Amino acid sequence: IRQGFPEVIFCQGKTAEQVATIMKSLAVHNNSILATRATEAMYAVVKAVLPEAQFYEVPKIIYVKRDTIEPDSQRFVLVMSAGTSDIPVAEEAAVTAEIMGNKVERVYDVGVAGIHRLFAHQDIIQNANVIIVAAGMEGALASVVGGMVAKPVIALPTSVGYGASFNGLAALLSMLNSCAAGISVVNIDNGFGAGRLASIINKMR
Amino acid sequence: IRQGFPEVIFCQGKTAEQVATIMKSLAVHNNSILATRATEAMYAVVKAVLPEAQFYEVPKIIYVKRDTIEPDSQRFVLVMSAGTSDIPVAEEAAVTAEIMGNKVERVYDVGVAGIHRLFAHQDIIQNANVIIVAAGMEGALASVVGGMVAKPVIALPTSVGYGASFNGLAALLSMLNSCAAGISVVNIDNGFGAGRLASIINKMR
Amino acid sequence: IRQGFPEVIFCQGKTAEQVATIMKSLAVHNNSILATRATEAMYAVVKAVLPEAQFYEVPKIIYVKRDTIEPDSQRFVLVMSAGTSDIPVAEEAAVTAEIMGNKVERVYDVGVAGIHRLFAHQDIIQNANVIIVAAGMEGALASVVGGMVAKPVIALPTSVGYGASFNGLAALLSMLNSCAAGISVVNIDNGFGAGRLASIINKMR
Amino acid sequence: IRQGFPEVIFCQGKTAEQVATIMKSLAVHNNSILATRATEAMYAVVKAVLPEAQFYEVPKIIYVKRDTIEPDSQRFVLVMSAGTSDIPVAEEAAVTAEIMGNKVERVYDVGVAGIHRLFAHQDIIQNANVIIVAAGMEGALASVVGGMVAKPVIALPTSVGYGASFNGLAALLSMLNSCAAGISVVNIDNGFGAGRLASIINKMR
Amino acid sequence: IRQGFPEVIFCQGKTAEQVATIMKSLAVHNNSILATRATEAMYAVVKAVLPEAQFYEVPKIIYVKRDTIEPDSQRFVLVMSAGTSDIPVAEEAAVTAEIMGNKVERVYDVGVAGIHRLFAHQDIIQNANVIIVAAGMEGALASVVGGMVAKPVIALPTSVGYGASFNGLAALLSMLNSCAAGISVVNIDNGFGAGRLASIINKMR
Amino acid sequence: IRQGFPEVIFCQGKTAEQVATIMKSLAVHNNSILATRATEAMYAVVKAVLPEAQFYEVPKIIYVKRDTIEPDSQRFVLVMSAGTSDIPVAEEAAVTAEIMGNKVERVYDVGVAGIHRLFAHQDIIQNANVIIVAAGMEGALASVVGGMVAKPVIALPTSVGYGASFNGLAALLSMLNSCAAGISVVNIDNGFGAGRLASIINKMR
Amino acid sequence: IRQGFPEVIFCQGKTAEQVATIMKSLAVHNNSILATRATEAMYAVVKAVLPEAQFYEVPKIIYVKRDTIEPDSQRFVLVMSAGTSDIPVAEEAAVTAEIMGNKVERVYDVGVAGIHRLFAHQDIIQNANVIIVAAGMEGALASVVGGMVAKPVIALPTSVGYGASFNGLAALLSMLNSCAAGISVVNIDNGFGAGRLASIINKMR
Amino acid sequence: IRQGFPEVIFCQGKTAEQVATIMKSLAVHNNSILATRATEAMYAVVKAVLPEAQFYEVPKIIYVKRDTIEPDSQRFVLVMSAGTSDIPVAEEAAVTAEIMGNKVERVYDVGVAGIHRLFAHQDIIQNANVIIVAAGMEGALASVVGGMVAKPVIALPTSVGYGASFNGLAALLSMLNSCAAGISVVNIDNGFGAGRLASIINKMR
Ligand SMILES: Nc1ncnc2c1ncn2[C@@H]1O[C@H](COP(=O)(O)O)[C@@H](O)[C@H]1O
Ligand SMILES: Nc1ncnc2c1ncn2[C@@H]1O[C@H](COP(=O)(O)O)[C@@H](O)[C@H]1O
Ligand SMILES: Nc1ncnc2c1ncn2[C@@H]1O[C@H](COP(=O)(O)O)[C@@H](O)[C@H]1O
Ligand SMILES: Nc1ncnc2c1ncn2[C@@H]1O[C@H](COP(=O)(O)O)[C@@H](O)[C@H]1O
Ligand SMILES: [Mg+2]
Ligand SMILES: [Mg+2]
Ligand SMILES: [Mg+2]
Ligand SMILES: [Mg+2]
Ligand SMILES: [Mg+2]
Ligand SMILES: [Mg+2]
Ligand SMILES: [Mg+2]
Ligand SMILES: [Mg+2]
Repeated sequence: IRQGFPEVIFCQGKTAEQVATIMKSLAVHNNSILATRATEAMYAVVKAVLPEAQFYEVPKIIYVKRDTIEPDSQRFVLVMSAGTSDIPVAEEAAVTAEIMGNKVERVYDVGVAGIHRLFAHQDIIQNANVIIVAAGMEGALASVVGGMVAKPVIALPTSVGYGASFNGLAALLSMLNSCAAGISVVNIDNGFGAGRLASIINKMR
Repeated sequence: IRQGFPEVIFCQGKTAEQVATIMKSLAVHNNSILATRATEAMYAVVKAVLPEAQFYEVPKIIYVKRDTIEPDSQRFVLVMSAGTSDIPVAEEAAVTAEIMGNKVERVYDVGVAGIHRLFAHQDIIQNANVIIVAAGMEGALASVVGGMVAKPVIALPTSVGYGASFNGLAALLSMLNSCAAGISVVNIDNGFGAGRLASIINKMR
Repeated sequence: IRQGFPEVIFCQGKTAEQVATIMKSLAVHNNSILATRATEAMYAVVKAVLPEAQFYEVPKIIYVKRDTIEPDSQRFVLVMSAGTSDIPVAEEAAVTAEIMGNKVERVYDVGVAGIHRLFAHQDIIQNANVIIVAAGMEGALASVVGGMVAKPVIALPTSVGYGASFNGLAALLSMLNSCAAGISVVNIDNGFGAGRLASIINKMR
Repeated sequence: IRQGFPEVIFCQGKTAEQVATIMKSLAVHNNSILATRATEAMYAVVKAVLPEAQFYEVPKIIYVKRDTIEPDSQRFVLVMSAGTSDIPVAEEAAVTAEIMGNKVERVYDVGVAGIHRLFAHQDIIQNANVIIVAAGMEGALASVVGGMVAKPVIALPTSVGYGASFNGLAALLSMLNSCAAGISVVNIDNGFGAGRLASIINKMR
Repeated sequence: IRQGFPEVIFCQGKTAEQVATIMKSLAVHNNSILATRATEAMYAVVKAVLPEAQFYEVPKIIYVKRDTIEPDSQRFVLVMSAGTSDIPVAEEAAVTAEIMGNKVERVYDVGVAGIHRLFAHQDIIQNANVIIVAAGMEGALASVVGGMVAKPVIALPTSVGYGASFNGLAALLSMLNSCAAGISVVNIDNGFGAGRLASIINKMR
Repeated sequence: IRQGFPEVIFCQGKTAEQVATIMKSLAVHNNSILATRATEAMYAVVKAVLPEAQFYEVPKIIYVKRDTIEPDSQRFVLVMSAGTSDIPVAEEAAVTAEIMGNKVERVYDVGVAGIHRLFAHQDIIQNANVIIVAAGMEGALASVVGGMVAKPVIALPTSVGYGASFNGLAALLSMLNSCAAGISVVNIDNGFGAGRLASIINKMR
Repeated sequence: IRQGFPEVIFCQGKTAEQVATIMKSLAVHNNSILATRATEAMYAVVKAVLPEAQFYEVPKIIYVKRDTIEPDSQRFVLVMSAGTSDIPVAEEAAVTAEIMGNKVERVYDVGVAGIHRLFAHQDIIQNANVIIVAAGMEGALASVVGGMVAKPVIALPTSVGYGASFNGLAALLSMLNSCAAGISVVNIDNGFGAGRLASIINKMR
Repeated sequence: IRQGFPEVIFCQGKTAEQVATIMKSLAVHNNSILATRATEAMYAVVKAVLPEAQFYEVPKIIYVKRDTIEPDSQRFVLVMSAGTSDIPVAEEAAVTAEIMGNKVERVYDVGVAGIHRLFAHQDIIQNANVIIVAAGMEGALASVVGGMVAKPVIALPTSVGYGASFNGLAALLSMLNSCAAGISVVNIDNGFGAGRLASIINKMR
């Protein structure tokens, strides 16, 4: 049983019973388990069969965490969001990285239309080892942050927006076209994937 | 003959002879004439029949300027570009506004991936009366500028880029989704339209 | 506390309780507050904690208005709509401009398929200082109005329509391609953005 | 050999020799022949083997016309265009209808951004039996005309434009979404199809 | 009061009360009234205030028909559908044409994947004066029918399908690209527009 | 060296020298070699180093054929095309299947807009073992043929067309949405892939 | 009554009563009947009038099977899925092929991101006569399998995924672009079509 | 002058003279300089003024390399390509990473349609510190590799392909939807961005 490598379940499209059964059986041989895109109703069913399971409401994650490794306190993952509506996706990334054994810091609601709010966080941004930037609408935050740091920036487009945001397409295209150095992009709303990649990079040495 | 309202010709898809004929006949009754999307070859033919015609090479504009009105030196239009490749489109906007009788300032190559370069121009940005922001790729500059000022910002997406820029679509969508106050958008590469709208707004009182 | 600059809350995706809490706390230091994309249910909760809050049902806006400035009665913003189904979006624009201290006139249901209805409003159109044109389906009204006036026209595409309207895409593209002078475009259904920009321009002098 | 029903060749993608051979062999048994999307070079080769062939330069049509039927002078097809760049496509429609034995009238360069120019042609519009409206960019002319008449309007989107016109897509969508009565749409740049349909309708009684 | 020209209401997005009020007031001065995209619930409310109103369940049309003109029995509109799921849209077209005073025939469920079923209807197809072809999925029926007749064919794409039908886009594109003579296209699911255009053409002489 | 399994080179994007070198080296150990998307210029270079190489001009295929197996004369692949412009793609499929050891029959220019032309070929269609249908524009031929036979139909969309054909997208979508039994689709213009699949299926027993 | 050729009903968009009526009447003259995209509620109504009808819950298929032919045990169709969420679509394909008289094997949840799981099934893959590969998200499984076998592979994209999967578009495009030999593609989620085509090919000899 | 951080010029859209001037002036204060998307003609002009400049023909990169740092021989970047046509883009990535001071290994032409070729490179894949996967067409290679390793994988879609590859869109979407752990994506053909990000990650410790 390797520490820091939880088994992961994608709950969307599964019944609460299926999720509970899978988690219970994974719990036999795994240190940590992560179930993303879960519902409160699923959690109730899981809790009944696996009492140590816990639930994060905002990112909708059920998890079991038995890993005892201490995260490296010098190397932290910074998760940023442009708006408040992007927070659930940002939290999916943050919690994923945490459960995988990383120290995580958060800076939320610092969209580029109020850029002074962003600059108030210069210090934490400069000290981060890996940065995840969650943004919907025009997704411009990733470029600005990418230009400020020499560390890898994982751009995480969200489906937040309306009209010509086309459910995250505008943010996705914006991020793919970023001119800043060190940026790469994951799927729309894929907080889990961003958190996992951040963890992989953050542990490189 | 009203000052500040040039006649305009869209040259794309016309022959040099057609452009020359139209310009010559417009020159009889108009103070100023603007021919956009022209070529050097067209200019040669125009010049032969209308010697006072002049040519801006970068924005590909042939023009006749007889207006004698002095632009209001207190109210200027600021034209910004994110990259150097956006300059031809930005210049189409700038020259259009100038020929329509406006004072125009330029701040080019200040993309958001190097945001300190942008902030070095704080003063001129704050003093502008109307701002045009030309940007291709991810088009994020419009949002950042829109968040810095209380004046109208005309977002001008350009077709500069490759891959998932889809010939300006990424910049266009990004700008339409901007959360900043006071932004509106014109067609991809429509420097002329941006310059004309800026002129209309700049003369309001 | 500057007059005419309300704080704004985007309610979509927030709970009634969150909206009420934010409005109550903003009410301490702000003259006017605007909460867009609200529901009647949200209003009930807000009203309970902030009795002076009021609700516009058609544009779904909760607001507090304490500004005492008189709008300039010579310079008015004209809000037009092509169909009756576009009215909620048009009203979001109109109410936004009003709360920001502008005189607003309305001309609704004057789509281009019955152009005589449009021309019956020639006078008010010619006298407007800024015009917002809300239209779904083919969005052609913006071009026609843009060609009639020398003032800025803010084209506001709506998601009204079906089939090949693709939720406002047809209107958006149509407006971006307008040949008329002085037109720019905001996001689909972004009545708030159109109203705010109209207010900014209407106060220029 | 039925009068008014020419054989038709689509030249794009064929060699001049192929076009010449096909036209020569069709000329044996047909009254009229129409070759669309032809080039001047093709015409030279055709002319050599079929001297009675003629060429319309603007719509790029080679044709043989032996029909002697007089078009009905009471019922005419009106072909309109929004801009001057739409004229080649409009002429493909007009010439097609003429060769099929219809009286055709033309009203060009009457885009909706200068709607007074359109209204100067009220009489001819009201007297037309079928109307073809060729327009690129925002394609709004079809809706305005459709609202003015009780006769069928064939909307003919053109690929004229740039940026978000997406090679005629904006005009196509705009026309499909028209609220005016009696409008239907053909493919982008399909002047031939519009002219043929107009002829079919114009001959109904 | 002209016969054969009903007033039309588009019910989608209106309340039952609004529909009832409009229909009642239109009933004072109009011979016939047509309310499309209605619901049974709307009909109940309308019926209460306007007892002569009737309801077609399949196409969801409420109507009042007082016209006494006899349709021309020699010239009929033929409405065809490729599948049974296309029938509601086809009926919107058929009923619209009927209320406008046309004789209408129907041939349903004759998709091209079973082309013998189509050919069993050769006679009625050859005798029709105008044909409307409603089809979703691949929309191929319009081309086949267009090739069989010398009369106008109105292609009516429907949103029937799944996957790569993209809500009618596949059928729409297919119909726009038809090589058959005499075809034009209306918006996806726009049975009303197809019926109205068919009526206009069917009455030409 | 297995008979009937040629090595294949995709020439697009390679230099004539590269193609020649690859073919020469493959010729040492292979019975048959197929080089698709070749040019006449490439052929000249190949011929110089590999004199037994031959060239099909229409499908642009260079090949070496040393296989001596006789194709099964009872089981043939039928390649059909809707238009004459589809023939190069159809021939890429046909020649591929032939070189792989299949008997191939061709029926070209039988688009659905003239369905009697199609039915003139009933016999050969009914006797085919596998059918490839190449069509651009609206791509309807695949559905009609698919409905006529109980054998597999490989739909091969081509980029033939203009306007809303979007370089083969209309045909591709149309074919994917076919209701006929036994149809599947390959990439736009992928005659090679269609021919190879047809060969695989044709040899099953 | 031919064995192995069931009549098929597409239930989506039909009422339970319509489905029951159709099935009952088909049951008079057919050996087997297949009703796809059915609901449990539909099954209850069908069962009441046609007691021999049975229901597969996962693929949502109601069926009657009276065929007594034994499937050829040497030639089996292999149905594979990349994820567990693809199983309902995969089962629609598998059950369709079974009811049409084929032996069917299943290998599920062998996505390419864990390619060793796929290779554990080498034997069954190599022995299959036809393979159906159901996959959503990136759809890569079809290419990998296509490269492993010399038999036909039917790629079946599913709408499983989120964000930039665009409801199956990513998988569809991926499969259409496969470089592997012998692959063709059916519509997104069209398990029935894949199963039917597999049956047709599997019976060829 | 920091080692390993070259200045970079994007040559596309610049004249040879502009490129030469910029490179010469950058050469005064920088250790290394990289000019991407250059042409041989540009190189000639650059070479004349900056004789130490060198040119990589395949990736079209002009560079000056004065850095003397030895790359860490234990940590290498692996650049993989699916096809031979992807090599120019892959080389842009590889050369970028090399000039930035990284050891780079290459494994080309190992597309998933011949997966044994891929597995022949198991060792080097497992030992890589960061992997870049360049692929056009269906882009499936990134998923397969991502599933094989625990290190970061940078997916680099290329515009290689035709038809429904839509200039790299299919590969881009495929990569964004990958289910494998540790994958992120850069813009289509953005070899430079991939190489730079790989370098940033490779130097983390
Ligand atoms: N660069 C441009 N982009 C869009 N519209 C333009 C441009 N330049 C000129 N126009 C418009 O084109 C009109 C002239 O078109 P034309 O009569 O074809 O020369 C002018 O009145 C302008 O409204
Ligand atoms: N209807 C609307 N559409 C777009 N943006 C809006 C709208 N209403 C408010 N906003 C913006 O949303 C911001 C507030 O967002 P939030 O902090 O999430 O409540 C405001 O500052 C406005 O810029
Ligand atoms: N099904 C329909 N699809 C499109 N347009 C329609 C439809 N039914 C009615 N209309 C149009 O909608 C107009 C009435 O719209 P309204 O005033 O909103 O009721 C009518 O004049 C028709 O032109
Ligand atoms: N016209 C074609 N379209 C698609 N794939 C092809 C075509 N011709 C050859 N191929 C494939 O390309 C492979 C050879 O590619 P290459 O190694 O780049 O020459 C062959 O194995 C075929 O699978
Ligand atoms: Mg950076
Ligand atoms: Mg601002
Ligand atoms: Mg104007
Ligand atoms: Mg009309
Ligand atoms: Mg016809
Ligand atoms: Mg069949
Ligand atoms: Mg294979
Ligand atoms: Mg991995």
